[in-house]
Amino acid sequence: MDRHRLKRILADVKADEITLDQALEQLKSFPYEAIGFATLDHHRSIRQGFPEVIYCPGKTDTQVITLLQSMAEKECPTLATRVSSELSDKVKKEFPEGKYNALARTVVLRRDLIRKQAGKIAIVTAGTTDLPVAEEAKVTAELFGYSLTPYYDIGIAGLHRLLDQIEKIDKADVIIVIAGMEGALPGVVGGLVGKPVIAVPTSTGYGTAMNGLSPLLTMLNSCAAGLAVVNIDNGFGAASLAHRILSNQ
Amino acid sequence: MDRHRLKRILADVKADEITLDQALEQLKSFPYEAIGFATLDHHRSIRQGFPEVIYCPGKTDTQVITLLQSMAEKECPTLATRVSSELSDKVKKEFPEGKYNALARTVVLRRDLIRKQAGKIAIVTAGTTDLPVAEEAKVTAELFGYSLTPYYDIGIAGLHRLLDQIEKIDKADVIIVIAGMEGALPGVVGGLVGKPVIAVPTSTGYGTAMNGLSPLLTMLNSCAAGLAVVNIDNGFGAASLAHRILSNQ
Amino acid sequence: MDRHRLKRILADVKADEITLDQALEQLKSFPYEAIGFATLDHHRSIRQGFPEVIYCPGKTDTQVITLLQSMAEKECPTLATRVSSELSDKVKKEFPEGKYNALARTVVLRRDLIRKQAGKIAIVTAGTTDLPVAEEAKVTAELFGYSLTPYYDIGIAGLHRLLDQIEKIDKADVIIVIAGMEGALPGVVGGLVGKPVIAVPTSTGYGTAMNGLSPLLTMLNSCAAGLAVVNIDNGFGAASLAHRILSNQ
Amino acid sequence: MDRHRLKRILADVKADEITLDQALEQLKSFPYEAIGFATLDHHRSIRQGFPEVIYCPGKTDTQVITLLQSMAEKECPTLATRVSSELSDKVKKEFPEGKYNALARTVVLRRDLIRKQAGKIAIVTAGTTDLPVAEEAKVTAELFGYSLTPYYDIGIAGLHRLLDQIEKIDKADVIIVIAGMEGALPGVVGGLVGKPVIAVPTSTGYGTAMNGLSPLLTMLNSCAAGLAVVNIDNGFGAASLAHRILSNQ
Amino acid sequence: MDRHRLKRILADVKADEITLDQALEQLKSFPYEAIGFATLDHHRSIRQGFPEVIYCPGKTDTQVITLLQSMAEKECPTLATRVSSELSDKVKKEFPEGKYNALARTVVLRRDLIRKQAGKIAIVTAGTTDLPVAEEAKVTAELFGYSLTPYYDIGIAGLHRLLDQIEKIDKADVIIVIAGMEGALPGVVGGLVGKPVIAVPTSTGYGTAMNGLSPLLTMLNSCAAGLAVVNIDNGFGAASLAHRILSNQ
Amino acid sequence: MDRHRLKRILADVKADEITLDQALEQLKSFPYEAIGFATLDHHRSIRQGFPEVIYCPGKTDTQVITLLQSMAEKECPTLATRVSSELSDKVKKEFPEGKYNALARTVVLRRDLIRKQAGKIAIVTAGTTDLPVAEEAKVTAELFGYSLTPYYDIGIAGLHRLLDQIEKIDKADVIIVIAGMEGALPGVVGGLVGKPVIAVPTSTGYGTAMNGLSPLLTMLNSCAAGLAVVNIDNGFGAASLAHRILSNQ
Amino acid sequence: MDRHRLKRILADVKADEITLDQALEQLKSFPYEAIGFATLDHHRSIRQGFPEVIYCPGKTDTQVITLLQSMAEKECPTLATRVSSELSDKVKKEFPEGKYNALARTVVLRRDLIRKQAGKIAIVTAGTTDLPVAEEAKVTAELFGYSLTPYYDIGIAGLHRLLDQIEKIDKADVIIVIAGMEGALPGVVGGLVGKPVIAVPTSTGYGTAMNGLSPLLTMLNSCAAGLAVVNIDNGFGAASLAHRILSNQ
Amino acid sequence: MDRHRLKRILADVKADEITLDQALEQLKSFPYEAIGFATLDHHRSIRQGFPEVIYCPGKTDTQVITLLQSMAEKECPTLATRVSSELSDKVKKEFPEGKYNALARTVVLRRDLIRKQAGKIAIVTAGTTDLPVAEEAKVTAELFGYSLTPYYDIGIAGLHRLLDQIEKIDKADVIIVIAGMEGALPGVVGGLVGKPVIAVPTSTGYGTAMNGLSPLLTMLNSCAAGLAVVNIDNGFGAASLAHRILSNQ
Repeated sequence: MDRHRLKRILADVKADEITLDQALEQLKSFPYEAIGFATLDHHRSIRQGFPEVIYCPGKTDTQVITLLQSMAEKECPTLATRVSSELSDKVKKEFPEGKYNALARTVVLRRDLIRKQAGKIAIVTAGTTDLPVAEEAKVTAELFGYSLTPYYDIGIAGLHRLLDQIEKIDKADVIIVIAGMEGALPGVVGGLVGKPVIAVPTSTGYGTAMNGLSPLLTMLNSCAAGLAVVNIDNGFGAASLAHRILSNQ
Repeated sequence: MDRHRLKRILADVKADEITLDQALEQLKSFPYEAIGFATLDHHRSIRQGFPEVIYCPGKTDTQVITLLQSMAEKECPTLATRVSSELSDKVKKEFPEGKYNALARTVVLRRDLIRKQAGKIAIVTAGTTDLPVAEEAKVTAELFGYSLTPYYDIGIAGLHRLLDQIEKIDKADVIIVIAGMEGALPGVVGGLVGKPVIAVPTSTGYGTAMNGLSPLLTMLNSCAAGLAVVNIDNGFGAASLAHRILSNQ
Repeated sequence: MDRHRLKRILADVKADEITLDQALEQLKSFPYEAIGFATLDHHRSIRQGFPEVIYCPGKTDTQVITLLQSMAEKECPTLATRVSSELSDKVKKEFPEGKYNALARTVVLRRDLIRKQAGKIAIVTAGTTDLPVAEEAKVTAELFGYSLTPYYDIGIAGLHRLLDQIEKIDKADVIIVIAGMEGALPGVVGGLVGKPVIAVPTSTGYGTAMNGLSPLLTMLNSCAAGLAVVNIDNGFGAASLAHRILSNQ
Repeated sequence: MDRHRLKRILADVKADEITLDQALEQLKSFPYEAIGFATLDHHRSIRQGFPEVIYCPGKTDTQVITLLQSMAEKECPTLATRVSSELSDKVKKEFPEGKYNALARTVVLRRDLIRKQAGKIAIVTAGTTDLPVAEEAKVTAELFGYSLTPYYDIGIAGLHRLLDQIEKIDKADVIIVIAGMEGALPGVVGGLVGKPVIAVPTSTGYGTAMNGLSPLLTMLNSCAAGLAVVNIDNGFGAASLAHRILSNQ
Repeated sequence: MDRHRLKRILADVKADEITLDQALEQLKSFPYEAIGFATLDHHRSIRQGFPEVIYCPGKTDTQVITLLQSMAEKECPTLATRVSSELSDKVKKEFPEGKYNALARTVVLRRDLIRKQAGKIAIVTAGTTDLPVAEEAKVTAELFGYSLTPYYDIGIAGLHRLLDQIEKIDKADVIIVIAGMEGALPGVVGGLVGKPVIAVPTSTGYGTAMNGLSPLLTMLNSCAAGLAVVNIDNGFGAASLAHRILSNQ
Repeated sequence: MDRHRLKRILADVKADEITLDQALEQLKSFPYEAIGFATLDHHRSIRQGFPEVIYCPGKTDTQVITLLQSMAEKECPTLATRVSSELSDKVKKEFPEGKYNALARTVVLRRDLIRKQAGKIAIVTAGTTDLPVAEEAKVTAELFGYSLTPYYDIGIAGLHRLLDQIEKIDKADVIIVIAGMEGALPGVVGGLVGKPVIAVPTSTGYGTAMNGLSPLLTMLNSCAAGLAVVNIDNGFGAASLAHRILSNQ
Repeated sequence: MDRHRLKRILADVKADEITLDQALEQLKSFPYEAIGFATLDHHRSIRQGFPEVIYCPGKTDTQVITLLQSMAEKECPTLATRVSSELSDKVKKEFPEGKYNALARTVVLRRDLIRKQAGKIAIVTAGTTDLPVAEEAKVTAELFGYSLTPYYDIGIAGLHRLLDQIEKIDKADVIIVIAGMEGALPGVVGGLVGKPVIAVPTSTGYGTAMNGLSPLLTMLNSCAAGLAVVNIDNGFGAASLAHRILSNQ
Repeated sequence: MDRHRLKRILADVKADEITLDQALEQLKSFPYEAIGFATLDHHRSIRQGFPEVIYCPGKTDTQVITLLQSMAEKECPTLATRVSSELSDKVKKEFPEGKYNALARTVVLRRDLIRKQAGKIAIVTAGTTDLPVAEEAKVTAELFGYSLTPYYDIGIAGLHRLLDQIEKIDKADVIIVIAGMEGALPGVVGGLVGKPVIAVPTSTGYGTAMNGLSPLLTMLNSCAAGLAVVNIDNGFGAASLAHRILSNQ
């Protein structure tokens, strides 16, 4: 029920076409979105030009392509994440103009519709194996319109590499720090700068890294107060959080 | 070595009191903070009037009181967290003018020195048992100078309680959402608003809540993209993260 | 906003005291429960005489007593669960007419207001140490108005004890089966009868019982298809689920 | 020993062909099922037309086909679950008239023999990736004879989608709610309706979803009292529980 | 229904007091134990003089004493395990003639009724902290009538202590080996002797001993093939298993 | 150093060819096995005709075949476990006369050399998916020379199937009970019979079966006192334990 | 059997008091330590003046005091660890001349007998709450005779504190680094210096620190290659490892 | 900024080409490594001839080859670990003169540049399946220049095999002990010798070995005080730790 129908009920009451009780009855089953929609969904890209996102694992290739086709009609930038290389090939045939990032495992359609935003995001990684997650964060943040600077492969095993860059990193508005294995890098960065630090554990590493559980625990327990932690390998979530922070400034 | 000493070395070089090599030697062992201090510590309350924080568990009562006394001399607002009631009694004798919050288990000294900041923080809790963590976040955020609005006991078991308040909650700049047991509240809030949502799991609940592990996992896995998760019961960390976000706007 | 206020808006529209747009504006911020209340809360005891429940752990004694006092004014049966013996003593002073069950750690106020319901519930336990959970389920189910038959201490170590009673147990409409340690009893019962079996793991037992995790896993993995599992030690939840099943028949 | 043999013993006693003690001796080793069969197995589909179920993983393809062939002779509807696509192809050759659901990974033979039952079941899913589990539940419930309404892809990230449908969902007799990742949907539904809600965690999601452990914990710890939880991905178990509830009304 | 009642049914059939069909009907609800008792319970101490066992945790002091009193009337040896010192004091007042072992936390009543058995059991411990579990095993095994030799405090940190004794240990029929921390002792013993080795992990040790989980895993994974593992701290279970092995030789 | 060399040292002392101190020095570095070998290894198949065992995973195919060839020269029965089908094919070419069990994933060479032993072992399984583990236990036990009776697929979901067979099962000297999923079968059997029951958890089942952890915990926590538990899927270990028990009677 | 007895056997052989075969027989049951003692135990403080250690938890107060008394007779330095304050008071009465460290929870007897060793050990801690573990390491290392330098409270939250000291720390031969919460300090130190770094996780911290599991995982997964990790809170073990390293140089 | 640039700043100050304040400003952004490089990195192979290491998992084949090529230009020995056989083939084409160890999954380039070091390392394994980890340790240790002795397949199931070799093992300066399954071997070795023992758990074994978690816990909890534990399967880390110990002697 939209604003239009709501108005008609009120007009009907006014015009005595329906009784008060009939109006009450209709309003009782008044669909939620009629009044709440704007509020509830203002965070959800209903405006033209804002990205839609499809998380691919668990969906069949056909489902993903159907979803992409329905997005294509809406004229909005669209992001698909965790795209397998098989799926990527199929999508490419359907959408040859899409942008493909093999490392990030992403597909972006209608990137031309993205509007630039003001905030600056630094993406810091500990090692080469964190790149896929970093690239997923990068693609996502670019889709939201932010400008990005990557600082890759400056983990704490060679602390000077980080210290050399920390002043530049601190110039960003939000810092995404991605690390696997011991996952100490976000805490070290968070101890050196006062900016919001978004910590992303990755599933890199030996046995007890436990598919990212070890760096996750490290980040949650960091003594650098106020780290924002997201789920393991969740580059998309990190960029989304950066967007929440930057879009409200 | 402070800026003063550094200048003297340079002056000595200039005045030929020391050779270039002697200067190099002195600079080689140049303590890190001499050059890095401003950068490294600008997030760390070196300006008069900024809070110092003491985490009490694992420290003896005597250690805590000694630390508080040394802070008292520095003329800065000071926060002690996780203060047991026994310790609280001892501190009260020493610092009768301190502010004590039994629920939050905090002591604040020199609250008069706090400077007001611009940002607004909403603190939302699912149930009554989340109050100690919420109060710790509240005391911490007040210490940083922010104005706060609490929305307590509006968990998802009675969804309308949340929906009634969501518009008001959405007026805050940062939203801290605290929940134990299933921990679904931050995800629901994060699905309704676009502001930064800081999710705090609490150790409330039956057996498999596992001292907060269950809500922690819920929050990390939320499909409301971009939740910022902090450690279990970490009200202090949540407020610190809010501060990182707000102080950089 | 209650039905009364909603009616007044409609009447105001009709009487031209407010314009359609003013009415729309008021309805837009119309509190959710005004329209949704009946639907959303019909499971929530808004009718006179239906129980309210207070889960005590994590609440201060004063909070619990305040809550009980506010319930007392509403003239409805009230249940407090996980009441420590200290709290129980305090409550007794305030509400001497309450019903106290030390084993179940419950307090019930205004039991006279309970209305009898049609369903029959069997409560089966494996051993003596499961009694507190069983009694919590029993007190809760009685509060909902159901008649109960307890079959205590008939675990599978002496299978004939169970087999002797199984025919009688099968006469109940819903069967709550409570077990710690290995937790196999619900699966055995579920293999013998076709009635809904609610499985409750308890935190009884040696080391690897892991505070109920072992029987919980057993129950979730039971090859007796269709067991309904609730949380560890959650007698209240089991009775609530029985109520969901029976109140919809 | 069947009823026939039992009768003969009694007749022999009566006819003095055996002494009382001889009869006692024979009865002592009286096989359990002779007397207990009807009782013990009345839940087990011994009546013509009731389904038999084969869980395929861990069985060789040959074992599964042999089992299906023996069922085919019994003239009863038969369900095979978790059928791999390889196995599915082999079964299709043997039973071309069977009904195959690739998403649900099920095969149903002799669906024509199913008898319609009275109960209505709603199946609610949070996202597209929960479909295989939902379809397994759907196929199973249809096999038990119930009519079903699917409400797919209405997770809490877009709460209004759920709220729009909740009234219709509440018209079902039993509600199966399936969710992965954070797994909060069953708790939200359970907070909105009073019907029996069967919560099924799925193994969808990022790192710490831990193959379904995260939503499982969420569901067990839900503050919506009285959720019935089944094992991870256990669509079959959920439908079986629905059958236990509905067949006893 | 006892043997007596069963005989009467047969007699009634014979005397034509009831028809065959009436007899069949009565036999159909024939309680299980009537025919199955001897079989099902022959392992369960129905013979005069065999021990009864009460596991105390989770039982109230009153429950334990009531159970002990009912045992006292049956004239059989009785063992209570995990008796707290408070409970022990209460029991002592009631049963001053009982045997109390503070280390094992056991009470034994009517030890005079124990019958000596043939088997020899060696109890080996790694360290002093394993003594309570060892003593529980010892008291239990003595109750079953076996003769015991303790080999305490010969863990693998000083391997020669074990090697000195291994030949004597190997003379026992069953060897119970108790160890906490790393839990390697049972595997070493099992590698040196061919006798049945019952491995008991204890909850001794530093952080990652995890209340016995670490030695439990060690024992389950021992490359000394054929260790029999029981639950953490389960001295009673180890002795019971020894009894199962020895009583069947 | 063998017995021979030891004797020569003593002879040399006697003959004054070496001094007492020289003898002492030689004895100090006296290799352990010289004196200890018989004792230490009497459990280890040094006698002609006793089986050797090779656990294949983690070994290259070449390593396994080399080991088998060296065994072949020793003229003793040899068992290889966890043989992949690829490895099996390679071994078959080398040892066409070997006995291959595809379900058990075993190869046995020189089965003709096995000596019959007295003990009887029953192998009980809950379901079809437990067969590979059961067959591994069966092959191993046959290799040790024992006669076996399998009771397959009599899990507790249809309790009467077990009860029908329990008397026969109880005639064995040792009972191996194998179950996955909930793993309750060994506890039920252990509650019905007094014989040694060896419980083997299998990695069968849905999500929270956790690759056998769930039935493992069930078996460790069984209230049927005195179950002997072995590692997950460890059919070989179960048979080895049976051998320890039976070979010492 | 000591060296003395061994010599007598040889002498008896020589003197023809026993035959070669009798000697062989005696040697076969020759206790292990007789020949192996020097080898096996050279690491075990058999020389006068070397420390004995008693780990107190799990031992009764009486057991500890008895052990201390037997040590006192041996005239060697003795260390008791994890001494509760109650036990400490009792020990003090018995051994007033002992050295008590309340923070480390240690008692040292006969410290005067310690011999100085050459190596230098640095003990680095992240925070104040790591002090008890650091002090246990310190007391232990001093007992072994090493000279120590403590660097307390220089965790990575204020990185410059560490960097200021790192050159001095690097002058030690072995570095023990102790940290709780996130546990990143040892990895940072290990990345800055090439000396052996012994990493000790402590059980300090919030919820997911999980009693030290989080820093333990961090240290095991450190990308600073070659950290030596010991158990949680195991200050004694860290110092023992330092001793192993230093005593072999 | 190198020493050269630093000197020029000082010279410029002296020559009045820049003011003191300008010099200060330049020094403030003075890159860290300029002063700290020698200290911070002296452990990091900056000297010609010292190895570089590449951990391959998570890197694309192209990334690894590019890294190897850039190393090749530096004229230093280079080690790549965890090289898949596919990658190995590609690398071989590019660097035919490299040394390939299929078991260790390593590639070494420019082994001719390795300088011999003084220390001796023993590598001890429990079983054949530990070989890949042992070989990785061996290749790494050889790269560091140490001489090695392997003692393979001497696990505690046949204790005499270990005892026969222990004296020779004890002649090494550092002992690396590698074991899966129960992981008891390092503790036994550590109880027999006083040398530094580096314990490496491997991911070998049945179900509850849990991919190496079980031996890891065993080693952390060993009662042989002072074991140095590294991560699961971390042969490289073990050799690196050996290098830390030996290079500082």
